[in-house]
Amino acid sequence: MTAEILSVGTEILLGNITNTNARYLSEECAMLGISCYYQVTVGDNEERLAGVIRAALDRSDVVFLSGGLGPTEDDLTKETLAKVLGRGMYEDPAIRAGIEDYFEKTGRRHMAANNLKQALVIDGAMILDNPNGTAPGMLIKTDAGKIVVLMPGPPGEMIPMFRDKVKPYLESLTPGTLYSRTLKICGIGESGVAEMLQDIIDAQTNPTIAPYAKTGEVHLRVTALAKDAAEGEALVAPMIEKIRERLGENIYTMEDETMEEHLVRLLKEKNMTITTAESCTGGLLAGTLVNVAGASDVFRQGFITYDNQVKHNVLGVKEETLRRFGAVSRQCAEEMALGAAKAAGADAAISVTGIAGPGGGTLEKPVGLVYIGCVVGGEVTVEECRLRGSRQKIRELTVKRAMNRMRLCLDR
Amino acid sequence: MTAEILSVGTEILLGNITNTNARYLSEECAMLGISCYYQVTVGDNEERLAGVIRAALDRSDVVFLSGGLGPTEDDLTKETLAKVLGRGMYEDPAIRAGIEDYFEKTGRRHMAANNLKQALVIDGAMILDNPNGTAPGMLIKTDAGKIVVLMPGPPGEMIPMFRDKVKPYLESLTPGTLYSRTLKICGIGESGVAEMLQDIIDAQTNPTIAPYAKTGEVHLRVTALAKDAAEGEALVAPMIEKIRERLGENIYTMEDETMEEHLVRLLKEKNMTITTAESCTGGLLAGTLVNVAGASDVFRQGFITYDNQVKHNVLGVKEETLRRFGAVSRQCAEEMALGAAKAAGADAAISVTGIAGPGGGTLEKPVGLVYIGCVVGGEVTVEECRLRGSRQKIRELTVKRAMNRMRLCLDR
Repeated sequence: MTAEILSVGTEILLGNITNTNARYLSEECAMLGISCYYQVTVGDNEERLAGVIRAALDRSDVVFLSGGLGPTEDDLTKETLAKVLGRGMYEDPAIRAGIEDYFEKTGRRHMAANNLKQALVIDGAMILDNPNGTAPGMLIKTDAGKIVVLMPGPPGEMIPMFRDKVKPYLESLTPGTLYSRTLKICGIGESGVAEMLQDIIDAQTNPTIAPYAKTGEVHLRVTALAKDAAEGEALVAPMIEKIRERLGENIYTMEDETMEEHLVRLLKEKNMTITTAESCTGGLLAGTLVNVAGASDVFRQGFITYDNQVKHNVLGVKEETLRRFGAVSRQCAEEMALGAAKAAGADAAISVTGIAGPGGGTLEKPVGLVYIGCVVGGEVTVEECRLRGSRQKIRELTVKRAMNRMRLCLDR
Repeated sequence: MTAEILSVGTEILLGNITNTNARYLSEECAMLGISCYYQVTVGDNEERLAGVIRAALDRSDVVFLSGGLGPTEDDLTKETLAKVLGRGMYEDPAIRAGIEDYFEKTGRRHMAANNLKQALVIDGAMILDNPNGTAPGMLIKTDAGKIVVLMPGPPGEMIPMFRDKVKPYLESLTPGTLYSRTLKICGIGESGVAEMLQDIIDAQTNPTIAPYAKTGEVHLRVTALAKDAAEGEALVAPMIEKIRERLGENIYTMEDETMEEHLVRLLKEKNMTITTAESCTGGLLAGTLVNVAGASDVFRQGFITYDNQVKHNVLGVKEETLRRFGAVSRQCAEEMALGAAKAAGADAAISVTGIAGPGGGTLEKPVGLVYIGCVVGGEVTVEECRLRGSRQKIRELTVKRAMNRMRLCLDR
């Protein structure tokens, strides 16, 4: 089965927004085993829109259309699709009531008449409710047996509609089921992972293995085509076992959780508190941890010690250490972490000190040199990292590496 | 003049990466006064690639092609374009020497022979040097008078090539010059800006006004078509004056700088130091400030005081304040900012306390309620914000609003 993703919106063609819907739908198609061959973006223009819809219906089995379902005159995706398909439209009383209700509940100014345009449904379409907005989606099977899925443009409306309504429908069309599990890896890069698994990747048939590179992480998706989930798990399990043997502790989770969620969960399970002492990341590490809802159970206080004097005054880093080894040193990272744990009265502490650039690097201590200190129960470990990229990139990678180091220390 | 953007790469169709090149090129086209009508993404497949190139040449004046210029067998954009145009290719000795030199300098393993594929040039093409990689770009005028621009896919190679080589060429084609200036606005939303400027926007001819929504900001681009920069400035200046009268201090800059760069610059000019005391943002505010290279001149220390006891112990927030008004209160924000300035010995301080959600909200203090305290030279100001969105969104908006409040306080 082949798919095509059509995004409708002049704001995309003006470069006003990035088209993240296309990426989302592409990734979902890949997971469903549907081959996406084209992504096309077109503006709110009837002639050009009709042209790309015709081309898509001609060459693809499934056509996703998102955007242009709103109440304004510019929004003409539904009307144009109806014309291309040669179908009429009717007003759906339930949708109309829902729109009127929405305006009443949100206490918005009197509803403009053109909002009722959104209650029009293409003949023969299956209606997809939109609990996050007023424009419903539609799923249409054409006379030629093609499937057209019409969805609103805002990701906050499109994604839940796809996930809850469209995906189950598409799954029902595929002969078996696609069962997949994702291994999240931190500590080795994409090419390193590929090298370590080369023979397994080369020999893949069912299940398949697909690597996805993320900032400081690699996600490995193992997907099996099976008749049901049980068979899928049976196919996937030996492959995962093989990968685990090779990658070991570099795999930090197989659950639907981020690195920071994983770390906060680990700390909660161990009933431990954590603190942070940051120099070059300047608060980004703590900011990332605190983004986990409920982080307050494990995190109460953090230190941003950008200046050497502050490292000494607040964390108790020895003046001699700063003088002899400098702030960007193994010794300083160690004293920062120990000092932070003590000052905050926390069970664990992460410290970060490094050179994020673009200036400040020397031959001996180049841009990208970062020391990460981890204290768990009084014991301290320091990792030396040599990272590459822009200032922002080095800081982001440092945050990821610091969390990874801490979860490794906690697992021991 | 109309343009079409073709992105080539199976990794985009698999949802592995987001297509940011298309957005970049679209925005650049808009600034050049070129109408972009289509964005199309296709995989590394000769037949489908040839099809979309033909369609683009048929309906657009300028065709941008990015991706698929690398050394592997999968990379076939150049070869396919040559076939579609019916042109041959020749090996360019200078490019060949450059590639060999690149491999020697970077000390990489022996260069694989297929790297020389990158030295092949389409007959009649103007070569666009690529100082950031091995695959050069090309600019071709077809027999039908269309322009095809071939660029590498990685943004780090494509963007400099476009900016330095392609853009000046396209500018030379337009009758006059497009002169534009951008006003960056914080404190009012996109619809607020549109409302305040409705009559100006409705009456626009030359210059034109285009609003771009960013996280917590609106950028307003004023563009004039003129015979040269001086005439452009003369056309744009009265319009900018009119907009400034309406939006006043909501405009934070007209320079090429971010809010954090603007704030760090203001502090440097005033020879002042700053500190931060963060609760719900947990370090993100300081992390954002520190992302400005050279922030160490103004920022030495920050406080992450997530827990109430820490707010009291570290910042001296009164226990009575916490008991009577709670941590999310005007009073607490005030005491946090004053306490941070004192503890760090800084001239200025920003404090943040609020409810980022998803839990923790009440009828009286709902999710999104945030207090921002600003101290400048001992004087304190507190702003109450009611923000909407996910936990992450509320935290990002808070950081932006906090920096905006501080620059307003500094400007007084």
